[in-house]
Amino acid sequence: MWRIGIPDKEFIRGKVPMTKREVRIITIANACIAPEAIVYDIGAGTGSITIEAAIQASVGHVYAIERNHDGVYLIKKNAEKFDCKNIDVVEAKAPEGMDELPRCDAAIIGGSGNHLESILDSLRVKLKESGRIVVNCVTVQTISRVLKWLHANEGFEYEAVQLQANRLQRVGPYDMSKAENPIYIVTIWKNA
Amino acid sequence: MWRIGIPDKEFIRGKVPMTKREVRIITIANACIAPEAIVYDIGAGTGSITIEAAIQASVGHVYAIERNHDGVYLIKKNAEKFDCKNIDVVEAKAPEGMDELPRCDAAIIGGSGNHLESILDSLRVKLKESGRIVVNCVTVQTISRVLKWLHANEGFEYEAVQLQANRLQRVGPYDMSKAENPIYIVTIWKNA
Amino acid sequence: MWRIGIPDKEFIRGKVPMTKREVRIITIANACIAPEAIVYDIGAGTGSITIEAAIQASVGHVYAIERNHDGVYLIKKNAEKFDCKNIDVVEAKAPEGMDELPRCDAAIIGGSGNHLESILDSLRVKLKESGRIVVNCVTVQTISRVLKWLHANEGFEYEAVQLQANRLQRVGPYDMSKAENPIYIVTIWKNA
Amino acid sequence: MWRIGIPDKEFIRGKVPMTKREVRIITIANACIAPEAIVYDIGAGTGSITIEAAIQASVGHVYAIERNHDGVYLIKKNAEKFDCKNIDVVEAKAPEGMDELPRCDAAIIGGSGNHLESILDSLRVKLKESGRIVVNCVTVQTISRVLKWLHANEGFEYEAVQLQANRLQRVGPYDMSKAENPIYIVTIWKNA
Repeated sequence: MWRIGIPDKEFIRGKVPMTKREVRIITIANACIAPEAIVYDIGAGTGSITIEAAIQASVGHVYAIERNHDGVYLIKKNAEKFDCKNIDVVEAKAPEGMDELPRCDAAIIGGSGNHLESILDSLRVKLKESGRIVVNCVTVQTISRVLKWLHANEGFEYEAVQLQANRLQRVGPYDMSKAENPIYIVTIWKNA
Repeated sequence: MWRIGIPDKEFIRGKVPMTKREVRIITIANACIAPEAIVYDIGAGTGSITIEAAIQASVGHVYAIERNHDGVYLIKKNAEKFDCKNIDVVEAKAPEGMDELPRCDAAIIGGSGNHLESILDSLRVKLKESGRIVVNCVTVQTISRVLKWLHANEGFEYEAVQLQANRLQRVGPYDMSKAENPIYIVTIWKNA
Repeated sequence: MWRIGIPDKEFIRGKVPMTKREVRIITIANACIAPEAIVYDIGAGTGSITIEAAIQASVGHVYAIERNHDGVYLIKKNAEKFDCKNIDVVEAKAPEGMDELPRCDAAIIGGSGNHLESILDSLRVKLKESGRIVVNCVTVQTISRVLKWLHANEGFEYEAVQLQANRLQRVGPYDMSKAENPIYIVTIWKNA
Repeated sequence: MWRIGIPDKEFIRGKVPMTKREVRIITIANACIAPEAIVYDIGAGTGSITIEAAIQASVGHVYAIERNHDGVYLIKKNAEKFDCKNIDVVEAKAPEGMDELPRCDAAIIGGSGNHLESILDSLRVKLKESGRIVVNCVTVQTISRVLKWLHANEGFEYEAVQLQANRLQRVGPYDMSKAENPIYIVTIWKNA
């Protein structure tokens, strides 16, 4: 039974891109998810983050918001495989679908479908005072837009790190470095 | 109350080098520490890994082995600060001090003081069948020696990743990347 | 006598930040400087790029534009040290100072003092048809602004790479990785 | 006409792995190749390094040593394409084939086919006093063996850097980072 850091290959996935294990672990750690937490996983993709969040929020609840129908299917399949009862999948383009949800302790943004600012605006209201937002950015435009929003909107603090993992791959008697794409992880919280 | 990923600044530290937060999180995740686990933290330094392991092993126990007297002091201070009762500090040069310990579910090697191979040899016996070893390597020689030992000793499988974190630092209206030193993290387990 | 890639320690430098050797080499290579080339080094800092460009443009000319008086002094000292006669230092805030210069074959932007877009606008005119612009970006905002300008302005193509160097440092019998800050290098040319 | 840093796509290549452009540029710069230099390219692969070395050594000569027949063919095709007359291809497993060559000013080791130490031993004799060796290492074992040889053999100094390039790739309106595998570049010279 995994507590955090399920291996990539354990997830059911189609062609939907998936957050790689090391990035997923740091994302989950940064979200500071308590057992009773309410979590949004926005742009949930295959649901790998959803599952990990659901394990952390063992007596809480995770709302996975995903606009892509294939993604929705995969998230449900993964929830089943990992026997997570505390997951609801919302098929919607965030911030649509967020209004009716209870306020959250943590929101993880893996994909924003070009609605990043309005999602962050919605979270001003939906995020509890002690809550955390974690945004994963694979493009220069996304990290730039998150920072721009943060510099334009008062009331938040943040930390950001670019993470790169090079995996050693056995090739005969050698261990060769195989690079994975780097990603920016931005962690945001309301200042006191 | 932290579950995983305590900020670096929370630890009491002198001039003893400390495992940075992202590396610490991945290390702890890779060690797969169950609540009742027995954990060795070998070359424990400031005890930042010790504390995180103790939080995971909430009803288990962590043995921090450290040869440096200043380190031993810091580990004890940090155990006190984070109110971890399930930590014993062993002032010794590993593998010395390991013999009398109960078998472990996880062993984390942060420093080996040039005794890496004999530490790994000792763990052949001390590590439970389902256990995990995680080695953090900041030098080319250390990663090379771990891999050499693994290729020479049957009965183990491993995964290794080099992790690099670039932290964004606010400078006026800009966010500038400040690099942290990369580290190899090797995760080892007994094959069935 | 160096052709490309002068060691960092050879340059006279004060507290002015300097482009590190590997980044400098790639920047110079990407600028494709022919012996007779006219080159602008914009935000020249210590002049390390200026010197390397002047070595490439052996029968051409390099105009170093720098607004900081200490920088201007350092560039001149370095030009003297490396015996480069084909350098003119222009003390100005670019794009100021660019108007009166002859059209260029290559423009390297190391610093833009928040005038990036107007510098790029000026280069629309000043850059020869076959010329190249190379922009070094140490902040998320700078790479983002370069890309935004490129996507908004027709007539250009580009390639961009983020470069990171980890230098091995001898510590006793070990070689330890010491990270240098990563940098984005954007290379721009007019499309046919 | 390229001076340094020919784009990857310009080379004729089959399935033989090729040194990527940024790594190639730094390698060539570190080799400090004067116009009249004699250069060995050991484990020349597709010959991309051979061609770049031949451009630097415009009135010198490059000996490309390659054991793989397909590689030999590609090197010759590339020499033809880039119109380099100053290249000889030696089909041999280095250090075989090195004995009969004139002493060199620079030796670049891209592949060593498990004969790294004997190649370096041969270069003790074949490398001129002021010469340079540059070794590209894609595996942990190779960088480790180079360092071990250097620490065991007197008379040499070295610098080593691990280089990683993340290329921005346009995807719709976004620029996404695509990682390339990191490589260690070791530069070696005889101490005075």
